[in-house]
Amino acid sequence: MSIGDSEQRLDATAKVTGRSRFTSDLMMPGTRVAKYLRSKIAHGRVTSIDTSEARALAGVDAVFTFADIPKIPFATAGHAYSLDPKTRDVEDRLLLTDYVRYHGDEIAIVVATDQLIAEKALQLIRVSYDEYPPLLNHQQAMDDQAPVLHNKAFNKVGEHEYELGNPSEMLKSADLQLAGSFQTQMVQHCHLENQIAMAYMDDTDHIVIVSSTQIPHICRRIVAQALSWDMSRIRVVKPTVGGGFGNKQDVVLEPMAAFLTLKLGGIPVQIDLDREETMLSTRVRHPISVDIECGVNKDGTLKALSLDVISNTGAYASHGHSIAKSAGAKLPPLYPKASLRYHAMTHYSTLPAAGAMRGYGSPQIVFAVESMVEEAARKIGMDSVEFRLRNAAQKGDMNPLTDKHITSCAVRECLRKGKEHIQWDLKKNEYRRSNESSENRNIRHGLGVACFSYGNGTYPAGVEIAGARMILNQDGRITVQVGATEIGQGSDTAVAQMTAEYLNVPVSSVHVVSSQDTDVSPFDPGSFASRQTYVVSKPVSEAARELRQKILDYAAEMLDCPASGLELNNGRVTGNTGEKTLTLKELALDAYYHKQRGHQLTADVSRKTTSNASSYGCTFAEIEVDIELCQVKVLNILNVHDAGKIINPVLAAGQVHGGIGMGLSGAMSEELMVNPKTGTIYNGNLLDYKIATMPDMPDIGSDFVETNETTNAYGSKSVGEPPLLSVAPAIRNAILDATGVAMNKLPMSPKALFNAFREAQLIQEAN
Amino acid sequence: MSIGDSEQRLDATAKVTGRSRFTSDLMMPGTRVAKYLRSKIAHGRVTSIDTSEARALAGVDAVFTFADIPKIPFATAGHAYSLDPKTRDVEDRLLLTDYVRYHGDEIAIVVATDQLIAEKALQLIRVSYDEYPPLLNHQQAMDDQAPVLHNKAFNKVGEHEYELGNPSEMLKSADLQLAGSFQTQMVQHCHLENQIAMAYMDDTDHIVIVSSTQIPHICRRIVAQALSWDMSRIRVVKPTVGGGFGNKQDVVLEPMAAFLTLKLGGIPVQIDLDREETMLSTRVRHPISVDIECGVNKDGTLKALSLDVISNTGAYASHGHSIAKSAGAKLPPLYPKASLRYHAMTHYSTLPAAGAMRGYGSPQIVFAVESMVEEAARKIGMDSVEFRLRNAAQKGDMNPLTDKHITSCAVRECLRKGKEHIQWDLKKNEYRRSNESSENRNIRHGLGVACFSYGNGTYPAGVEIAGARMILNQDGRITVQVGATEIGQGSDTAVAQMTAEYLNVPVSSVHVVSSQDTDVSPFDPGSFASRQTYVVSKPVSEAARELRQKILDYAAEMLDCPASGLELNNGRVTGNTGEKTLTLKELALDAYYHKQRGHQLTADVSRKTTSNASSYGCTFAEIEVDIELCQVKVLNILNVHDAGKIINPVLAAGQVHGGIGMGLSGAMSEELMVNPKTGTIYNGNLLDYKIATMPDMPDIGSDFVETNETTNAYGSKSVGEPPLLSVAPAIRNAILDATGVAMNKLPMSPKALFNAFREAQLIQEAN
Repeated sequence: MSIGDSEQRLDATAKVTGRSRFTSDLMMPGTRVAKYLRSKIAHGRVTSIDTSEARALAGVDAVFTFADIPKIPFATAGHAYSLDPKTRDVEDRLLLTDYVRYHGDEIAIVVATDQLIAEKALQLIRVSYDEYPPLLNHQQAMDDQAPVLHNKAFNKVGEHEYELGNPSEMLKSADLQLAGSFQTQMVQHCHLENQIAMAYMDDTDHIVIVSSTQIPHICRRIVAQALSWDMSRIRVVKPTVGGGFGNKQDVVLEPMAAFLTLKLGGIPVQIDLDREETMLSTRVRHPISVDIECGVNKDGTLKALSLDVISNTGAYASHGHSIAKSAGAKLPPLYPKASLRYHAMTHYSTLPAAGAMRGYGSPQIVFAVESMVEEAARKIGMDSVEFRLRNAAQKGDMNPLTDKHITSCAVRECLRKGKEHIQWDLKKNEYRRSNESSENRNIRHGLGVACFSYGNGTYPAGVEIAGARMILNQDGRITVQVGATEIGQGSDTAVAQMTAEYLNVPVSSVHVVSSQDTDVSPFDPGSFASRQTYVVSKPVSEAARELRQKILDYAAEMLDCPASGLELNNGRVTGNTGEKTLTLKELALDAYYHKQRGHQLTADVSRKTTSNASSYGCTFAEIEVDIELCQVKVLNILNVHDAGKIINPVLAAGQVHGGIGMGLSGAMSEELMVNPKTGTIYNGNLLDYKIATMPDMPDIGSDFVETNETTNAYGSKSVGEPPLLSVAPAIRNAILDATGVAMNKLPMSPKALFNAFREAQLIQEAN
Repeated sequence: MSIGDSEQRLDATAKVTGRSRFTSDLMMPGTRVAKYLRSKIAHGRVTSIDTSEARALAGVDAVFTFADIPKIPFATAGHAYSLDPKTRDVEDRLLLTDYVRYHGDEIAIVVATDQLIAEKALQLIRVSYDEYPPLLNHQQAMDDQAPVLHNKAFNKVGEHEYELGNPSEMLKSADLQLAGSFQTQMVQHCHLENQIAMAYMDDTDHIVIVSSTQIPHICRRIVAQALSWDMSRIRVVKPTVGGGFGNKQDVVLEPMAAFLTLKLGGIPVQIDLDREETMLSTRVRHPISVDIECGVNKDGTLKALSLDVISNTGAYASHGHSIAKSAGAKLPPLYPKASLRYHAMTHYSTLPAAGAMRGYGSPQIVFAVESMVEEAARKIGMDSVEFRLRNAAQKGDMNPLTDKHITSCAVRECLRKGKEHIQWDLKKNEYRRSNESSENRNIRHGLGVACFSYGNGTYPAGVEIAGARMILNQDGRITVQVGATEIGQGSDTAVAQMTAEYLNVPVSSVHVVSSQDTDVSPFDPGSFASRQTYVVSKPVSEAARELRQKILDYAAEMLDCPASGLELNNGRVTGNTGEKTLTLKELALDAYYHKQRGHQLTADVSRKTTSNASSYGCTFAEIEVDIELCQVKVLNILNVHDAGKIINPVLAAGQVHGGIGMGLSGAMSEELMVNPKTGTIYNGNLLDYKIATMPDMPDIGSDFVETNETTNAYGSKSVGEPPLLSVAPAIRNAILDATGVAMNKLPMSPKALFNAFREAQLIQEAN
């Protein structure tokens, strides 16, 4: 009765009125402020550090340097723990370091009564370095002579390859062979709320961490590991979170906050990064370069794709090679009939550490693949949409990587729907004519398209588990606890709708506890991999069914009739014949307050998911290029998704709007720029880092082709990350369509366009 | 493996080091301070109030008067809700009032950015009153001409009577008849942490209340009622509480805090009473007067007791007549063979409102009864202990009030044990000689004894429900959530021991979530009626057994063997034959992280208790009286309890020490003193109110006679309130023993002793 309705977000009023309470709004009296001393160089070793003046400053509680911290290496990546040591994340972090691996690395930390004193103390610390040349890219990092950044033989983090079908043979035997090289840039998540964590010790000598995290339960485990402290004696609380986009899927601040409160007798200590620290010293998106070979037949058959992927994870592994690996797994479900080769390696460098970011490697790979596919279609003279329609997956196809059938897939229907919406054929013809006309050679128009597939969670790479607990309250309303972590994406509202559906009550009768608390929240690794709605549906639906049955059984006791003759409809228990009836409130009051019978009615369910459906979709972009100004104006951009059954159309559309905006910004302007000599970052702030703002946004269109995903209790699939994936290649393909110029490197900024247009002789050297 | 061990309190370190975080330690940035404008008169009506200057003061957010509040009367008493409207608490409160009913009544409230501004604003409010004569006692309050304080026909709150056996006949037919009148005073709880509550609105437009309360779930219900707001949309969080003794079993501040945040757009508002406000304007103990008639046979048989009880509940009903009613129900289980008549009425007055306080009316009734019983023993010339041994209950006796057998009772063994400890016979003889000797007529010695019985919860007067949820953590430790509310008494530690017992793990492996949160904590009305350990034992033991079985079942799946062949011993699953073995941590890691099998192992149990055992015990007091100084020195005081099986001897002894201290202070010095003309309170502060401090404390002895209470999963019974009950009469009886003077009114202060000794001509008029 609720699934498919555009229910208002549960937190809408609080967000709009500014009432939401984020981590910094929960600072307790007496909380100390901790500030990191960060390296101003990108690569080197601290030769001396003098903290005596800082320690002596009034208001400074303590200063800790790399010499004071436990020597327990830990991994920060927010993955569920693996029972297999071989697939665990790379443990390459200490709380502080004397070996500086990037511009912003953490050397020491000051704890003081307020921020001004902490910052003053930082200025009083004297540091000397031995500075080394930076290692910025694959060539520098993997050079035989390159210094090794971590305790390894060389700077490689991981490498893998798969071959599906017979790619080398298919490449050779195809009618035509193409090749291309693609490069993506280093960008940052730029979530509204910076990274922040507070820690203190509670009455039972446990460490309590309040943190803006996507992964409270994982955070608990990693802090335990980093401090060699019992996991049960750590409690992580997640209040309202102002966005994360994957950056808060790393455990960046919490181990240090916990360490500080432990050292300082349990007083609350807060680490609240500023924007500049968040941009440089949390996580960035992996810059990835992809070389592709492609074999295509003239009839439009995509015969083979062979990818060589190099991923630069920066100074620390964080999610490391799993980014490149995960992205590679999204290709076979999209083009299952092509022979595929995917080889990827990830290396360290002295760039800021790259971690999870919306799309988790896929935006980079999709950019390369969908650019290459576009080239293939053009090479054989086939319409871009038509070519994809011929090759993209459909339901029932075998995913050659998993040997499992694709349980739902409407990417072809998405392509058709998008094509119609954007008036593809009409405009293609119109623009071809106008671009070729001599009247206005400076203004060109083009259309582009790109497809993607994406997963629902991490299975089978990672364990997928989720939980839900439901309580029938005295007033007949339902409280729901989930481990699924609301970070702004709207998952609580989806959970409320899922609950309402099975209990047959209005959504307004369902209260979802939004703050996760690892002491009491059902276990769930958290918000990542577009997993929440998919994975939580199992325990939510089962808990709702269990609670429903308990309600009917209790009604049967009250009404002295068999439960089988009762139904739960719109908050009321009714008999088949209609005469026996109870409101949920009447029933609940009896269960709670009858002196002899009854008890609090609850349901508590934890379940693992052992499936992983694929979401699909495509982006259509219609653009105008001003050649002389090197300016691309997006006239229309449209995503059409197959995300299964849509739980909440407005929230799903919201995800699409946000994803397209982020994709557009990343495609056209964002880039963390590096001084090639020193390795320091030029623009680690929101003034110099060019992120799109509202005036940069075109009208954004979103549409859905609903399928019924049978592996999910509500038929739904992921829609959190996918909207971003195919934006950049769609625009790139539209620029190609408009100008004939292939922009194979991101961002497609005016500067890049200028260089490309000049090379293509669309614009001439200035006199 | 843990029950019966003196485990250290879970919060010991935090309490000793000052790390514990109470409500005021959780104040959030931007929290506003609210201060009440309280009446300076005891009885009257506000004729005009001008808040314009206060409202205009910079930093004042708002001022609300009695004219601004919802006109929804509500009850503040912390009782579980009753399905029967006739047994619900009296709804006689509004948030503010223009009719002043006691000195300190709440007329208006100021909300400001800090306390100083709030207090300054209070001074700017101009109030005029019509002042009326106070109604201080039964005579004044129940006079036909007395103004009626509430919306009732007259000032009576409640009245009831029971007769068991044939009391009038037995009184008449007894060998001897005695009568006596006893009076107890108005005292205050004086818990360390004053009353405090904070409220704000959360992301889902729910009201969150953080409060130092004994009854979070009841608080939620009462706030909902007072504001006509959905119960599910209120969340009450109880952090560490610095004592309550029943005063925080009233919902005093929370409705107002919730009202204020609702009015002010959800900003956090804190009401933090100071000591003077807590003493006058929260709750006090009911002053009670008791007239008793007693029939006794010369052979030592207590034939009959007939009590007429008048209880003064002050300005508002609060727990009202249930105090006198509940206390009356404790008499039959102590002297079940005597015929009993108990008549009680409770009336309003213009004194501060009386509510629940440790013992819940029983200290007053026990003082009267055990003084009367002492008189009876003396009248027939029988030893005081011997007389009680003859008449007190024993296991298997029928409780004539409930018609149920007494399932455990060792009050006679307690008497014998105490008698031996204190060397009763030896000292009786010795003191008789020394008191009679002419050498030092000024210094007298005496021994006194008094018995009591007490309940375990409120059943069948109230519904008894409790819940427990257990989680097996990844490290093999157990997290326990209970609704049972730790307020300093040590219940969390008892719950940890109960859990450890059934799971066969060390207590250090059990973490009890100490903070109750009505959104997620299992339902339990809270901490009162000495119910926690008794009532929570059912769901805790059942949840532990359920979790244990789930662990064994999962181990069976892992080990591929039948669960019936497995055992859980000291944190390890072992096979019968010993070869198959798993630590709980190994098992938990598999359950959480195996990719296909397993889930989070939890158990979630809510249960009602439909029994109510009686605890028993006695106090022995040995005193020295300096007649001329009117000074009583307690040389020895000893409580011996039958509290069933003792869960934690040190914590139980701690309850006894605290109870004796409180009882001693209440017996000897405490009294809220009233100006008989104006009705205002003379000494509503800790300077003028004479509460005992450490130097006033004698050596305190405690001992136990353990029984096995079959209605409880661990054999245990209540020990929270009982230690207080028989302290005053034991001392009173010892003074009688030493001096022949019967102190029938509390407190037995030097001034009272002076008057009594002078009347008895032990001291002469000064020249």
